Amino acid sequence: MVSSAVPSAYPYIYRESLALLTDFYQLTMALGYWRQGLHQRPSAFHMFFRRAPFEGGFAIAAGLQPFIEFVESFRFSPSDLDYLADLRSPQGEVLFPQDFLKYLSELRITCDIDAVPEGTVVFPYEPLIRVTGPLLEAQLLESPLLNLVNFPSLIATKAARVSLAAKGDEILEFGLRRAQGVDGGLTASRAAYIGGCTATSNVLAGKIFDIPVRGTHSHSWIMVFDDELAAFEAYADAMPANCVFLVDTYNTVSGIRHAIDIGKKLRQRGHEMIGVRLDSGDLTYLSIKAREMLDSAGFSNASIVASNELDEWLISEMKHQGAKVTVWGVGTHLVTGFDCPALDGVYKLSAIQDDDGCWQYKLKLSEQMRKISNPGILQVARFSRHGAAVADVIYDTLLGLPSPCTIVDPFDATREKLLSNEDDRQDLLVPIFRQGQRVYTSPSLAQIRADVQHNLSHFHYTIKRFVNPHQYVVGMERNLYDVKVNLIKKIRQGQAAKIASRGE
Amino acid sequence: MVSSAVPSAYPYIYRESLALLTDFYQLTMALGYWRQGLHQRPSAFHMFFRRAPFEGGFAIAAGLQPFIEFVESFRFSPSDLDYLADLRSPQGEVLFPQDFLKYLSELRITCDIDAVPEGTVVFPYEPLIRVTGPLLEAQLLESPLLNLVNFPSLIATKAARVSLAAKGDEILEFGLRRAQGVDGGLTASRAAYIGGCTATSNVLAGKIFDIPVRGTHSHSWIMVFDDELAAFEAYADAMPANCVFLVDTYNTVSGIRHAIDIGKKLRQRGHEMIGVRLDSGDLTYLSIKAREMLDSAGFSNASIVASNELDEWLISEMKHQGAKVTVWGVGTHLVTGFDCPALDGVYKLSAIQDDDGCWQYKLKLSEQMRKISNPGILQVARFSRHGAAVADVIYDTLLGLPSPCTIVDPFDATREKLLSNEDDRQDLLVPIFRQGQRVYTSPSLAQIRADVQHNLSHFHYTIKRFVNPHQYVVGMERNLYDVKVNLIKKIRQGQAAKIASRGE
Repeated sequence: MVSSAVPSAYPYIYRESLALLTDFYQLTMALGYWRQGLHQRPSAFHMFFRRAPFEGGFAIAAGLQPFIEFVESFRFSPSDLDYLADLRSPQGEVLFPQDFLKYLSELRITCDIDAVPEGTVVFPYEPLIRVTGPLLEAQLLESPLLNLVNFPSLIATKAARVSLAAKGDEILEFGLRRAQGVDGGLTASRAAYIGGCTATSNVLAGKIFDIPVRGTHSHSWIMVFDDELAAFEAYADAMPANCVFLVDTYNTVSGIRHAIDIGKKLRQRGHEMIGVRLDSGDLTYLSIKAREMLDSAGFSNASIVASNELDEWLISEMKHQGAKVTVWGVGTHLVTGFDCPALDGVYKLSAIQDDDGCWQYKLKLSEQMRKISNPGILQVARFSRHGAAVADVIYDTLLGLPSPCTIVDPFDATREKLLSNEDDRQDLLVPIFRQGQRVYTSPSLAQIRADVQHNLSHFHYTIKRFVNPHQYVVGMERNLYDVKVNLIKKIRQGQAAKIASRGE
Repeated sequence: MVSSAVPSAYPYIYRESLALLTDFYQLTMALGYWRQGLHQRPSAFHMFFRRAPFEGGFAIAAGLQPFIEFVESFRFSPSDLDYLADLRSPQGEVLFPQDFLKYLSELRITCDIDAVPEGTVVFPYEPLIRVTGPLLEAQLLESPLLNLVNFPSLIATKAARVSLAAKGDEILEFGLRRAQGVDGGLTASRAAYIGGCTATSNVLAGKIFDIPVRGTHSHSWIMVFDDELAAFEAYADAMPANCVFLVDTYNTVSGIRHAIDIGKKLRQRGHEMIGVRLDSGDLTYLSIKAREMLDSAGFSNASIVASNELDEWLISEMKHQGAKVTVWGVGTHLVTGFDCPALDGVYKLSAIQDDDGCWQYKLKLSEQMRKISNPGILQVARFSRHGAAVADVIYDTLLGLPSPCTIVDPFDATREKLLSNEDDRQDLLVPIFRQGQRVYTSPSLAQIRADVQHNLSHFHYTIKRFVNPHQYVVGMERNLYDVKVNLIKKIRQGQAAKIASRGE
């Protein structure tokens, strides 16, 4: 039982073993590499995405800690191996021979892994994670890495956008009921908190991740009683310290009046009503009305919580129209990334050593330049001037980063830029594993959450806006770019020669 | 440790306890009900959705088995209770007193639960699950029920649509890398199989749920070798019984030629190439080209697998244009329900007993008739004629279902219909729990998958089409409709009287 052997802050992802949480072809390729004697061959892979989600200008990296725990606990359990031993081809042939399964039973991850810390602001084509090490191991990590990193990065990004829209107001995440599976919910709660949410309704997420939890009552509470006033009063009796009255069950304005009535009674008993919640109707209009009513009744500190299919677009628009909401409840649209429910992160081979131990750079060709991956063993340097980020540079660690350094727009070679010596430069990928040993300790979740806000503050507002965001400069270091172009040409010439030799 | 006490086919959802997988307000309301002495009050709740997803005409129910296991294993662990004991209000007050936590520590689910079996074709406003029993228990089930049922129903529906589009072709699900969390992936694989997929790439889903797994190799396999032909040959050496060659790494037409070359060598060794996979470019054109090339080389039985951001719309369109694809690989768009990533399922109180043990019917009012819930203790009868489903009727189990029976369109009372005695009628909700004891055994996953195809065959094709689907008749039984209308009027009159009495 791996789960008991590895104490974890993230018990929800641990079962007996997650080694089979992968695509089947990773295992058939593993067998192939092993049969070909290539399984130990040093290789390099990078994870990156091609498009910032939500038509935005940036993303927030998340999911590293669960991935670290996956790597640390990686091993095939006896029942995993039994399962693989039983698999057959359509013709009934054994797929995985016993000697290979014995090899798998002893397999541990011994790779070097470098990654951007959770909470880093990242951009398309930048490597977020680099895995170097034995080909078979690095290949096997692909599917779980993408599963564990794509989704939290998507949701941390969405939460950061909601947080930008809310301009300092509190944000409550309550998406559990529409989340995609049990840890679709748990993972989303964690990522939403990283991205800027104040609290979650998901109690298990609160327990596991030490996130503040919030909630009061639903419409059904009101419906259980003969009328709304009786329902509020009963709730105030039961939990006087946690009174946010949901006021829209029958008629919102009447509901606010009833809340004020009970708020006054609470005050006589030494408690203060926390606020009211609006869950339907014209939230902007009703929030202004609620503010007036609460203020004139002496409840100027009472919160006004609003919810109902909110997202960053609606929150922006409502604030623009003068909504007096003080706490935003965000559910389905946040935890599913509704308007863009997947980050398009991929994981590509970029270098492999030949028989002589020399690195051979690799790329995946495509008719579209945007889909051709970068070769090399990569790093990203972020250049800053007076505390403001000015450009990121993707460079190869073997070719190095000259100073000063010329960068090229990878999709328009006519655009170059010289980055001066005087700018601050910081490598974004930091060591996480060295030969399979963890050399990194994740900050607390609260620290990561603070880092996101701090990191975002270094970027110009035009990059963070929702409509037509400015494109932040991400260039390729000149030498790396030249290597890539030459490699593309070489492959294309090789293909042309082959086609010619077949006489076509 | 509950997980070891409850043997389960679904170990992935079991951790120490999932009792806290809920929204915080369920627990604060539980405390409130308990303080008010209402916790044992018999009550009835129903889960239903308001809109068929993907702008379609139907949905497929799924997720019942995980929900059953949740209910059976429901209990608060010592660490759950410790967590709740430590929670404080903003003013530092204890939220959950010890005597209440002691009550929770002994709490088990004793409700009656009725549900439509997984694989049932369902429509908006029909109850999919009915929970009757002690108010506190029935309330606590809301959030986990919605989490465990909404998402699989969404994905089973998506898969059924993909399956309709594919018209009998095989469908492979390989969405793990973009799925929303670990069991965002596992749950999606299970639901996709129910909905009609042939196999999954997710090996852990294969192991847990006994779903066929499939896969061969990725682009990185090709890139590891000096050229594509060498890569195919190496793969064929390693796994001759599992050869589906991915042919688009450099140039698809060359790739097909290389696959044919290796296919011939394989045949000499007594193995048959399974097929080729296309993953980029114009899949329709390339599939036709591949079919011609394979046929004329003597590989007319070779499969043509296509993948790349496919969904039911693209598959339909490609088939319309004559694509020669025989196996469809569907990933991100299937497992996230991309164009509609959440089913809008809700769970509403519909009746509660008064002090005298008489059922009081309840509904949640709204300015929109479509958002007013149905009162009562409900059942759905499906009427069929010569094997074809003609109408569903939502009726109240206490008011009964007359024969013949008049139904009313709940959103247009001028539309009525008389359903004759001669139609077959079948109740869709079946008993799952009686006083907390399970009285139902789920069919195998393969059986549920077959049921979906069988059930769908009873519906007219116009209901199943993608663009402007016909709306299947779902009516309310006349007496239930009248009860609902009278209840709405009574509540509205009560509100008006109250507003008048305040002199406004």
